[in-house]
Amino acid sequence: MYGDISAKAAHMLSLPKVSDFFARLIQRVSPKSYHQACAEVYVTQKFLENFCGDQVRFLARSFGVPGNHLGQQSHGFRWPYGPVAIITPFNFPLEIPVLQLMGALYMGNKPVLKVDSKVSIVMEQMLRLLHTCGLPVEDVDFINCDGKTMNKLLQEANPRMTLFTGSSRVAEKLAGDLKGRIKLEDAGFDWKILGPDVDQEDYVAWVCDQDAYACSGQKCSAQSLLFMHENWASTSLVSKLKGLAERRKLEDLTIGPVLTFTTESMLDHMKQLLEIPGSKLLFGGKPLEGHSIPSIYGAIKPTAIYVPLEEIVKDKNYELVTKEIFGPFQIITDYKSSQLPTVLDTLEKMHAHLTAAVVSNDPLFLQEVIGRSVNGTTYAGLRARTTGAPQNHWFGPSGDPRGAGIGTPEAIKLVWSCHREVIYDFGPVPNRWEIPPST
Amino acid sequence: MYGDISAKAAHMLSLPKVSDFFARLIQRVSPKSYHQACAEVYVTQKFLENFCGDQVRFLARSFGVPGNHLGQQSHGFRWPYGPVAIITPFNFPLEIPVLQLMGALYMGNKPVLKVDSKVSIVMEQMLRLLHTCGLPVEDVDFINCDGKTMNKLLQEANPRMTLFTGSSRVAEKLAGDLKGRIKLEDAGFDWKILGPDVDQEDYVAWVCDQDAYACSGQKCSAQSLLFMHENWASTSLVSKLKGLAERRKLEDLTIGPVLTFTTESMLDHMKQLLEIPGSKLLFGGKPLEGHSIPSIYGAIKPTAIYVPLEEIVKDKNYELVTKEIFGPFQIITDYKSSQLPTVLDTLEKMHAHLTAAVVSNDPLFLQEVIGRSVNGTTYAGLRARTTGAPQNHWFGPSGDPRGAGIGTPEAIKLVWSCHREVIYDFGPVPNRWEIPPST
Amino acid sequence: MYGDISAKAAHMLSLPKVSDFFARLIQRVSPKSYHQACAEVYVTQKFLENFCGDQVRFLARSFGVPGNHLGQQSHGFRWPYGPVAIITPFNFPLEIPVLQLMGALYMGNKPVLKVDSKVSIVMEQMLRLLHTCGLPVEDVDFINCDGKTMNKLLQEANPRMTLFTGSSRVAEKLAGDLKGRIKLEDAGFDWKILGPDVDQEDYVAWVCDQDAYACSGQKCSAQSLLFMHENWASTSLVSKLKGLAERRKLEDLTIGPVLTFTTESMLDHMKQLLEIPGSKLLFGGKPLEGHSIPSIYGAIKPTAIYVPLEEIVKDKNYELVTKEIFGPFQIITDYKSSQLPTVLDTLEKMHAHLTAAVVSNDPLFLQEVIGRSVNGTTYAGLRARTTGAPQNHWFGPSGDPRGAGIGTPEAIKLVWSCHREVIYDFGPVPNRWEIPPST
Amino acid sequence: MYGDISAKAAHMLSLPKVSDFFARLIQRVSPKSYHQACAEVYVTQKFLENFCGDQVRFLARSFGVPGNHLGQQSHGFRWPYGPVAIITPFNFPLEIPVLQLMGALYMGNKPVLKVDSKVSIVMEQMLRLLHTCGLPVEDVDFINCDGKTMNKLLQEANPRMTLFTGSSRVAEKLAGDLKGRIKLEDAGFDWKILGPDVDQEDYVAWVCDQDAYACSGQKCSAQSLLFMHENWASTSLVSKLKGLAERRKLEDLTIGPVLTFTTESMLDHMKQLLEIPGSKLLFGGKPLEGHSIPSIYGAIKPTAIYVPLEEIVKDKNYELVTKEIFGPFQIITDYKSSQLPTVLDTLEKMHAHLTAAVVSNDPLFLQEVIGRSVNGTTYAGLRARTTGAPQNHWFGPSGDPRGAGIGTPEAIKLVWSCHREVIYDFGPVPNRWEIPPST
Repeated sequence: MYGDISAKAAHMLSLPKVSDFFARLIQRVSPKSYHQACAEVYVTQKFLENFCGDQVRFLARSFGVPGNHLGQQSHGFRWPYGPVAIITPFNFPLEIPVLQLMGALYMGNKPVLKVDSKVSIVMEQMLRLLHTCGLPVEDVDFINCDGKTMNKLLQEANPRMTLFTGSSRVAEKLAGDLKGRIKLEDAGFDWKILGPDVDQEDYVAWVCDQDAYACSGQKCSAQSLLFMHENWASTSLVSKLKGLAERRKLEDLTIGPVLTFTTESMLDHMKQLLEIPGSKLLFGGKPLEGHSIPSIYGAIKPTAIYVPLEEIVKDKNYELVTKEIFGPFQIITDYKSSQLPTVLDTLEKMHAHLTAAVVSNDPLFLQEVIGRSVNGTTYAGLRARTTGAPQNHWFGPSGDPRGAGIGTPEAIKLVWSCHREVIYDFGPVPNRWEIPPST
Repeated sequence: MYGDISAKAAHMLSLPKVSDFFARLIQRVSPKSYHQACAEVYVTQKFLENFCGDQVRFLARSFGVPGNHLGQQSHGFRWPYGPVAIITPFNFPLEIPVLQLMGALYMGNKPVLKVDSKVSIVMEQMLRLLHTCGLPVEDVDFINCDGKTMNKLLQEANPRMTLFTGSSRVAEKLAGDLKGRIKLEDAGFDWKILGPDVDQEDYVAWVCDQDAYACSGQKCSAQSLLFMHENWASTSLVSKLKGLAERRKLEDLTIGPVLTFTTESMLDHMKQLLEIPGSKLLFGGKPLEGHSIPSIYGAIKPTAIYVPLEEIVKDKNYELVTKEIFGPFQIITDYKSSQLPTVLDTLEKMHAHLTAAVVSNDPLFLQEVIGRSVNGTTYAGLRARTTGAPQNHWFGPSGDPRGAGIGTPEAIKLVWSCHREVIYDFGPVPNRWEIPPST
Repeated sequence: MYGDISAKAAHMLSLPKVSDFFARLIQRVSPKSYHQACAEVYVTQKFLENFCGDQVRFLARSFGVPGNHLGQQSHGFRWPYGPVAIITPFNFPLEIPVLQLMGALYMGNKPVLKVDSKVSIVMEQMLRLLHTCGLPVEDVDFINCDGKTMNKLLQEANPRMTLFTGSSRVAEKLAGDLKGRIKLEDAGFDWKILGPDVDQEDYVAWVCDQDAYACSGQKCSAQSLLFMHENWASTSLVSKLKGLAERRKLEDLTIGPVLTFTTESMLDHMKQLLEIPGSKLLFGGKPLEGHSIPSIYGAIKPTAIYVPLEEIVKDKNYELVTKEIFGPFQIITDYKSSQLPTVLDTLEKMHAHLTAAVVSNDPLFLQEVIGRSVNGTTYAGLRARTTGAPQNHWFGPSGDPRGAGIGTPEAIKLVWSCHREVIYDFGPVPNRWEIPPST
Repeated sequence: MYGDISAKAAHMLSLPKVSDFFARLIQRVSPKSYHQACAEVYVTQKFLENFCGDQVRFLARSFGVPGNHLGQQSHGFRWPYGPVAIITPFNFPLEIPVLQLMGALYMGNKPVLKVDSKVSIVMEQMLRLLHTCGLPVEDVDFINCDGKTMNKLLQEANPRMTLFTGSSRVAEKLAGDLKGRIKLEDAGFDWKILGPDVDQEDYVAWVCDQDAYACSGQKCSAQSLLFMHENWASTSLVSKLKGLAERRKLEDLTIGPVLTFTTESMLDHMKQLLEIPGSKLLFGGKPLEGHSIPSIYGAIKPTAIYVPLEEIVKDKNYELVTKEIFGPFQIITDYKSSQLPTVLDTLEKMHAHLTAAVVSNDPLFLQEVIGRSVNGTTYAGLRARTTGAPQNHWFGPSGDPRGAGIGTPEAIKLVWSCHREVIYDFGPVPNRWEIPPST
């Protein structure tokens, strides 16, 4: 049944007037450009296409292994949890809830869904579309409330599994409250390393700009820390980054309001960073002007600050430098070949391991960096990026048993089902079997 | 390397003098018959055989999916956590720690291992054997301490993952303390249902006796609640169970001391159950005699108590009836075909879902019971049992995202590794590519 | 790209006016009822839905295994053959060519397609639809010619793989001509066994009628030989079969012309069978009347002939009884429990092993029959059938290395790709490596 | 059971006196150095270790997919063929027959085995070892006869599958005789390409020497054609190759007799090659001296001949240049970056596609060459080689539906089993179901 619903819903989202409606609705509540909003609708459509026809049943594929005697066979199933909960944030008001909700339904769960109330109108409209495509109204509970109420509801309803996407702070609290019956996709302080082989400067600069500043940096995959090999440091890369950052403007929302930090708090953070010896402002660092963004939100120009690697690794600076600013803000540093171990130690010390990029076509360099890091979604190669994972690339943190994933069949199976093994043992009991002694 | 170590260790355990040594050592610290102790050694040997040669590397199998353009490919890996902890109980002093420890090592983790200190001598000897077979001494940390010290150590060392096998009470506490970075295999209140098709009475009786009373009921898979269809209730099954239970004797440890309940507390529990209207003692219910078991342990005859189904489902009785007694103690009840939904509701309400058995060769009956229950390791068919899962049958709870598994390749991958996705994107950048507008 | 084409084509086929067009076009050239023709269109649509979005790339999933030293990793790919050929028969003019053609394209091959020229107009229209949905015209070569010309073309063009669906006679010739570079799905003499547990008589009778006589028996999965356990023989099953067969009428094509046998040749075959001692005509056995079917085709009433099991196994009769008549014609026999081994030997001796059905809910009976037979698509259980496999059930023969499959992801991978293993071995070469002696 | 046999046999082969016995026995009949013979025993041992314990049953893993209604489930199995045949050549008298034989047995087949009679004593001894380890004597038929007798036997016995490893000529004949019921691993004309990035000259030279001349070039994976990028051509690589080739000597069998070509026929072939304009002898090209090798065998020094790329591609030369000489003989050529398409066309035109090596750490170069070629076992990276695939790397040709594989679980499943799908459909039949109209 869910194969049919997905086929219909995917077809609906492929109609220009429907996708335009959702893209504009997303823009009404979430600060991103039309192009970025369309991309969110497109990824959602493609995800639904992936689970047309029989693909939902193929997700529930089990395996069998012959047993120890005639008539015995062991079957491993992916089994639903039953009652589950889904909590999703403001920055992807359509993609994250649809992908997680449908994943939960595909595997046979009974979900209750809560979307950040600032943006929940998008999902409210999408649910109506899904109902039109055949989703039974009783299959999903949709709740609008604040976090506190939701927390209470969770502790009382005691769902067998809760998927939470959002800030690390809330994630840790919920993990304790729910005694670990949770899967998490929390914020990451995502890094990119440019390797020793310099090539395609324009392309790499453009990817860096998009990774750091698209959606005003409000993606959990946004590039927060850029390590340049000295070979790159001696190119015009930084000046190209500056040029690209300065193209961004409020009118088309290629830069826009920050929902979780005020302008002041971001500039304060910048000041603290600039007190580190050797630090300097590369570009940005000023408030946006000529706008009516309320002061409870933030509004700054795309900003990059240079901090020397030797300072980053110092205990007193490390916490400050790796503090995640969910906005158009990044740290840039550089390293010599001999300093690669220091870079890798820096990465190892981070506590969340979401996305990463290793920009190099040198296989030996790649295998060293990848082998010593643990980020869940890691792009490697000259075209590596930290953001923009489509529905066919697993997206999620690694190195944590509570880590969730989103998008791919593996992600759905990991998050929304558990292993169950049924061993069929029909017999026959051997001829002339007799009761053996007790043991 | 671990393939070679496993091959050598498996060969060592296959030598009669080595397996006898370990079986007797197990008997010194854990109350079970020689046959049961040998079975523990044998399962451990077979597990090691399963991961000879290249099978360790095959465990780390990744997959690749073509990307969105030339030069892009997405690879999904099973990745180790890094530093991890393993905590195992008294009842399987060799099998549980070896299987979990080797699983952790196979996937590339760095484990610290704590075995219940009453029985840790077995694993201490086994580690020496593994060292002889080539295990580097620095690959495993083995710690002997009480639970409190271990708890403190965990909170300070902050391992990325902890595997805990033991009581539900400690499991829940640890899950909170470690904010859910844990996999659990805790006690279960395991049930068996005899279906409407009566056949092979002797065989079924013998399996029930072993499931309930082998190792004096101190297996987390022991049968605690038996539902008989009325067709079975009218046979001589119960009298056969009684006969088998009375064969058990202290001399050969087919019945023996209970380590976590005193005789008094078990008899008290029995008294409370017998106050339920319609309840009766089927057999047992008396202390063992003529022994020198210290009074801090328990010692009772294999015991079965009948409680009517209508009483079990009452809220005031439910908690009492489904209290797990980690000893030779079971509840027996019966049901009519029309009461099957009541039976299924009873199962659904249990909070832990470890093993179960559905004794029937009727496919429609089996699919109804299996489809409505969620136990992790479920045996189905006339030869179904709740205990005695070999290393080739997944063993673990289901319906809980924190649930661990033991034994099979799937169990090792689930418990000891996490998903990581590396997307290689080497390019080339298309000819005549130009910087597009910001988004 | 093929994900998009499939999504669009599936949506087109879901439109009532398009599916009606194709159903009626199929009826113009292939003798089947409107319901059966619609089912063919529906299965084709669902198949296309299965490979929307990213599912085509997921088909090309590879796997990786760690190597013997740092920098080595072995990757197993499903690789296309390159130039391939597809030859399909008259009885499913849409489903078979679309499923095989798209499978070949999904895996990256360059196919030339030949459909039986009596019915190739259906596929000619479908190719136009696919072109509209984005299929590049140069990706498929569509050829209309007779078999002889095609044979010549194959020997000259020497495709790396040829998929042939059709008669056993042509299949064997082609296999020799192409030196085995072929996958085959040829005719089968398909059997059904009714087990000892009698239940749901009406349902079983209806399934038998559909299996034997839908599409006038012109499915390679049609039931040709029915074994009834004596418990069934003593029910009114045969008289129910007779009643159902007599409902079929030419007006709605629930019975219709036979394309590969004349009326005379089928009646001759019947006469020969009736000469076997103990044989008798159960029903049918007469020409259809009041029609204008040309005499080069056949036209008989749905026919069933009883032959005793003891006679079937005799060498002199076996060949005759198991001769496949591609029309509304079946043999029925019965057996006692003690004769089951004889029944199984009869099955084992057949040379083609396509579909089979074991109608029973007795697990021990099922495992005995299934364990001793080798048919590719075997239905088991009370609702078992031989025909009507949807796109989510593998369909194809077993027990032959040249056997093809159709429909499922496994079938596509088996038929349209081969294993290729690329072992990446980037190094590094160990420090201070020196040239060792020759070996 | 086969898990136990494998464990015991692997342990036996790990004993020094047993492995030495087999290595020396191999040397008695097959011209290779002690080191190479030991490697053959070692790979056989490791293969057996891979299928200890439960790994044989894990090979027979099936999968299940939920069906279209309650009670239906589709299971895909790997099913044995039944009676099968295995024919293996002289050059690996232990490894090839053991790996294929055990693979056939693991999947449940009943094999008859024929090893080249010049070397069958090795397998005769190994079968005795396997019998000692528990192999039932009736499970394998071992036959000693010439090819003609075997051919007759195959046509009469009509095994469901035949595995043939040996020359292309015999392979093609058998494929026709057996109507394609065959899997083949025939000779290959294997190539290596050195890419534009020159590095680790000594290492690459040593690998080239081993690939071309170990076992006197009598491996089906031996390097027959070497393409050097012009960057390599300007190094001292060729003179290093010459130096390494000249180290080889008859005493330790690092060079030895050639079993299928006489000295004369190889020197004749060389002369023909040297008539191509621009060709020259790089080294070797002389008979071995001071030996008693019978003249029906060949004996020449390790030989390399340079032929210009422009000449290789000419139709009149192509056949000659790519003729496989199963001896210590290779062609070397060079190419400019602009000539890469010519190189790739040369590869595409070859008819057998067994092993290949692409020596480069440049990902863009690798993806171009790999994407345009189809060899079954392809090594890529600076450490790439054509020979020496261990049991954990699939070994076999690609691009041919008859292609066999050896060594890995995938190879065993492909060669020794076929897909069978059993769809369980137990019901229930829906309440109030009524017979629908015929279709």
